[in-house]
Amino acid sequence: MSETASISPLVPREGWHVMHLFYQVDHAQWSILDKDEQRSAKTRLTTLIQEIRATPDTHLLTFAIATPKADIGFMLLTPDLHVANAYEKQLTLSLGPEVLSPVYSYLSQTESSEYTTTAEQYAEETLKGEQGLAEDSPEFASAMKEFEERMAHYLQHRLYPVLPDWPVICFYPMSKRRNGADNWYSLSFEERKKLMAGHARVGRTYSGRILQLITGSTGLDEYEWGVTLLAKDTIDIKAIVYEMRFDEVTARYGEFGDFYIGMQLPLDQLFRRVCL
Amino acid sequence: MSETASISPLVPREGWHVMHLFYQVDHAQWSILDKDEQRSAKTRLTTLIQEIRATPDTHLLTFAIATPKADIGFMLLTPDLHVANAYEKQLTLSLGPEVLSPVYSYLSQTESSEYTTTAEQYAEETLKGEQGLAEDSPEFASAMKEFEERMAHYLQHRLYPVLPDWPVICFYPMSKRRNGADNWYSLSFEERKKLMAGHARVGRTYSGRILQLITGSTGLDEYEWGVTLLAKDTIDIKAIVYEMRFDEVTARYGEFGDFYIGMQLPLDQLFRRVCL
Amino acid sequence: MSETASISPLVPREGWHVMHLFYQVDHAQWSILDKDEQRSAKTRLTTLIQEIRATPDTHLLTFAIATPKADIGFMLLTPDLHVANAYEKQLTLSLGPEVLSPVYSYLSQTESSEYTTTAEQYAEETLKGEQGLAEDSPEFASAMKEFEERMAHYLQHRLYPVLPDWPVICFYPMSKRRNGADNWYSLSFEERKKLMAGHARVGRTYSGRILQLITGSTGLDEYEWGVTLLAKDTIDIKAIVYEMRFDEVTARYGEFGDFYIGMQLPLDQLFRRVCL
Amino acid sequence: MSETASISPLVPREGWHVMHLFYQVDHAQWSILDKDEQRSAKTRLTTLIQEIRATPDTHLLTFAIATPKADIGFMLLTPDLHVANAYEKQLTLSLGPEVLSPVYSYLSQTESSEYTTTAEQYAEETLKGEQGLAEDSPEFASAMKEFEERMAHYLQHRLYPVLPDWPVICFYPMSKRRNGADNWYSLSFEERKKLMAGHARVGRTYSGRILQLITGSTGLDEYEWGVTLLAKDTIDIKAIVYEMRFDEVTARYGEFGDFYIGMQLPLDQLFRRVCL
Amino acid sequence: MSETASISPLVPREGWHVMHLFYQVDHAQWSILDKDEQRSAKTRLTTLIQEIRATPDTHLLTFAIATPKADIGFMLLTPDLHVANAYEKQLTLSLGPEVLSPVYSYLSQTESSEYTTTAEQYAEETLKGEQGLAEDSPEFASAMKEFEERMAHYLQHRLYPVLPDWPVICFYPMSKRRNGADNWYSLSFEERKKLMAGHARVGRTYSGRILQLITGSTGLDEYEWGVTLLAKDTIDIKAIVYEMRFDEVTARYGEFGDFYIGMQLPLDQLFRRVCL
Repeated sequence: MSETASISPLVPREGWHVMHLFYQVDHAQWSILDKDEQRSAKTRLTTLIQEIRATPDTHLLTFAIATPKADIGFMLLTPDLHVANAYEKQLTLSLGPEVLSPVYSYLSQTESSEYTTTAEQYAEETLKGEQGLAEDSPEFASAMKEFEERMAHYLQHRLYPVLPDWPVICFYPMSKRRNGADNWYSLSFEERKKLMAGHARVGRTYSGRILQLITGSTGLDEYEWGVTLLAKDTIDIKAIVYEMRFDEVTARYGEFGDFYIGMQLPLDQLFRRVCL
Repeated sequence: MSETASISPLVPREGWHVMHLFYQVDHAQWSILDKDEQRSAKTRLTTLIQEIRATPDTHLLTFAIATPKADIGFMLLTPDLHVANAYEKQLTLSLGPEVLSPVYSYLSQTESSEYTTTAEQYAEETLKGEQGLAEDSPEFASAMKEFEERMAHYLQHRLYPVLPDWPVICFYPMSKRRNGADNWYSLSFEERKKLMAGHARVGRTYSGRILQLITGSTGLDEYEWGVTLLAKDTIDIKAIVYEMRFDEVTARYGEFGDFYIGMQLPLDQLFRRVCL
Repeated sequence: MSETASISPLVPREGWHVMHLFYQVDHAQWSILDKDEQRSAKTRLTTLIQEIRATPDTHLLTFAIATPKADIGFMLLTPDLHVANAYEKQLTLSLGPEVLSPVYSYLSQTESSEYTTTAEQYAEETLKGEQGLAEDSPEFASAMKEFEERMAHYLQHRLYPVLPDWPVICFYPMSKRRNGADNWYSLSFEERKKLMAGHARVGRTYSGRILQLITGSTGLDEYEWGVTLLAKDTIDIKAIVYEMRFDEVTARYGEFGDFYIGMQLPLDQLFRRVCL
Repeated sequence: MSETASISPLVPREGWHVMHLFYQVDHAQWSILDKDEQRSAKTRLTTLIQEIRATPDTHLLTFAIATPKADIGFMLLTPDLHVANAYEKQLTLSLGPEVLSPVYSYLSQTESSEYTTTAEQYAEETLKGEQGLAEDSPEFASAMKEFEERMAHYLQHRLYPVLPDWPVICFYPMSKRRNGADNWYSLSFEERKKLMAGHARVGRTYSGRILQLITGSTGLDEYEWGVTLLAKDTIDIKAIVYEMRFDEVTARYGEFGDFYIGMQLPLDQLFRRVCL
Repeated sequence: MSETASISPLVPREGWHVMHLFYQVDHAQWSILDKDEQRSAKTRLTTLIQEIRATPDTHLLTFAIATPKADIGFMLLTPDLHVANAYEKQLTLSLGPEVLSPVYSYLSQTESSEYTTTAEQYAEETLKGEQGLAEDSPEFASAMKEFEERMAHYLQHRLYPVLPDWPVICFYPMSKRRNGADNWYSLSFEERKKLMAGHARVGRTYSGRILQLITGSTGLDEYEWGVTLLAKDTIDIKAIVYEMRFDEVTARYGEFGDFYIGMQLPLDQLFRRVCL
């Protein structure tokens, strides 16, 4: 990353930049390289991935993609957009000129949800309201402390996620509809918050089977959010996305791009999988 | 498949993974190969297909595609997504670099229908309700046994299908509409079940002429289902899809991708058909 | 066609398969061939076209396409889908690898119209109803005979058409809309029949100037019908399609793909036209 | 044009055929040619353009296109579709194989407007109605003569236009909407005529700054009309298209394709502009 | 620019022409060049950029693009369309034939907003109306002078903008919707002005963090406006575009193209970033 040494970093006030990168392998281009060039190409990518993974606060997932719509996928999480951009260009070129041909990519940022319960709401609605605790009672203080720790933990995982090595990864971009009577952005905050709560309830029933990361991309890429799902069984991907579709948030307001299914693989396995 | 030996299999809790793969033959790339290379390319694909067909619980259909929108198609059914992925990459590359150029592909899973009558419904509605049988009567027990055998047979064929060698194969992807007043996902389960029952009734009138396999792809690919039709006469494909279009399930709620028409052919015939 | 000798033919119970094939000429690929190769490429296509035209019940139109969106077009009508498929692959490859680059193609079948007056309707509504003829009268018998001959003639031309050599050919694919209140497939058969009758009335005013062939493609290709218009003057193509647009069938229910305008030319003229 | 000598011309009963042709220059293909080949390629195009412009009733505009979406544009007006087709194929190939790569093209015909006041309407509504002239008065005869000359002049310019050499040319294709309550083709002729009159009124305020040519393409290409605007300042293009957008004809019923902005240039300037 | 010496300039009555140019680097084409050719290619682009920046009233931003959907971006502002066109073609070709492959581009013009308060409105509504000043009072004259200076300054920045070197640049094209009940162009000027005022209020809260330039493209390119946002942190791009989406102007009437995120970089850094 010496290249970016003299450039001021582009680190967001909170959260990381996220790139999803999907490539087809152009075997005609690859076959132009001789055996030595192919070997050093693979070494170059291996070294680059090690360098990326050694970068502070930086994570890189590598995976094979199902069906020929893509072959190799990367998911890169890193704070500085300059670093993300430099790594992304190097990944694209790593196996030689035009060997990795980009078929889809996505730029987003980790972000907290605006519909999360705030400390104030929790104090007013839950502790004082529902539980009738006095604001100066020790129970109130302790409950607030517990709430704040829980939320900090949750926020840490939304903003600075460390993704598990579950074998299946699904990515799709998503927007909320603005179409006649079905206009998400004409709803009040309260209506949206209520709808999102029901949506989250469905999500929680998949806990332990699906790990979901929502990243924001309004103004950054062609949809408004990117969704990354990790699973141990593709059937759970299908089940959660299908079940969610009946939820009003999706049924009336969800618009989707294409879906990419990957399998996390170490690099040597990945090379063999895509016949490199 | 030694490649995937050390990788934990990705077999769904129930059903198989299904891939539909459509390619154009790039004859300019093919013509770069000399006669010997072309011969061994064809042998490589032949051997690969034999290996795939020898894999347990794995089926592969090979077919020529009508019109230049594609030339060669494969339909692959196999439990493990890793195996499907490895075979798919090898099929794509089998005839040499960039000879088979992917034009469309689809990932789905076999699945049972959620609208199928359950044992409980059958017991309550049909046996106790309509037929007035007592739950502890021998008639009830015998009818339940018969029902369960029939459903097990049906389920076996939905989840682990063995497709006949009927000459015509039609594939298209499909979603249910979510558009203003025509929103399938805002209907109740009962409304959907009733609509689907009418839909199925039309389908049954084509029994013996059309074999239909619906596979699920919500969260896996760009539409929600893949539909594979096998027939002996293309006129029956046209007839069933046209007749279905008047059914409310399709008329109001069906959204379709493109249609691919193939002809099942043994590999040597397929090579000759596409001028390889 | 010796290739397909051992394969059972795929001939529909009624009608023929129809393929519309549109290609761009890749002159860079063509210029790689030396003069001798170019000459034998042209001879190969000439011979192939003669073979196709010598095939029983098989017709092939050849035409130049206006504007660079395509250069050469073929319309192939033949009973057996295997034969159509084999000829189509050979046509694509005839001028050498990747010289003819497919830009659009369409698969359909000739079919009779479901809205045609049946013998029963004619007997009940026209003869017995309007004309008050007795079913056992000689006038009734003679009128029925005349009707049946006329319909047989009409049907013969819909199912087994022999197209004239009029110079202008227009092709476009078409579907009926299923969109909110404008849903063709939610109309009753009677409503559709009435609307289609008005549509046909407009068409008949172009008799002698426009020859129209509607072929069905629901389930076979991305639209539901293919429309082929033959004319002596492009102004008549424009006039009929424009006038039809005001007809309710089109105004409310018509969805169109792109339009291709060709000029029927003998092969030597066609070669010169596209600079081969 | 000796090529088309033995072919019957395809000249419409009234008006000319019009082709808009937009190309990108493929400099990789161009750079394969040596200096001599490049020189003779440019001479070939120069000679071809001279030949086209020497063809009776035939006009050719040449222009550079703004932004890399295209480089070179031609607008060809000529009566015979065979001639247009032959010239178009030759233009595409003129600079060598695949040097000019087509990015968009459009086929249309000059046509008169159906909403123009007829002689009958003028006589009835304006002369007899508004002005109270007697049909046999000399004032009536003289007014009719004046009207007919004006309309003949107008019609001549719609059907057989000679376009000025104003530097800016804008092309876009356009259709009228058929969507729910906004269905142009469900309006009566009178409603459409009234709406079009308002539309024309806006257009006339740009007289001297914008020259507009509407050509018809229903049934000929993917939209229903092609619009060619000539101007001396791009700001007038922007102004008229923007102002028109508030007119009900456009606001409720207009559907547009992409917009192409060109600058008319003599061929030597054009070569230099696109770095040939 | 000697090339355009003899051509009359195409300078709009007010404002400049603006081009946004996005390219992918084709490394296969680049790798065909030897080291010397690569060095002189880079020098050629460096010299060209210096020449462009030395052109009067002309600005050029250079930036790297995030994600492989593009690599290099330019934003060019210059009065004369001939100059813009010549520079754009030269930029595209600067690194050698087909090295910079255009992926998206956009033509627009700087323009003032039609919804800006006029001097007349300010005099009537604010000074005479709200503040009750007499038209011949010295306070009125002084307030009018102050208003006119402020507006002149604002207008200068809309029509002849000098963009800061903030690191992040976001571009997207935008239209106003014309769809059933959501038809911007059917609203009265007053309704639109009121809606736009609310929209502007949101924008002003980002002052100092976001610099926004709206340029007009109705009739010039496929959308009606181009939006360029400059920022110091991508999170502010995301925040403003997201917040704006709830504003009625966007929620009901906004239609967007794709979003491009760039990082302004000096040319040597840019070369290194994209591995040239």
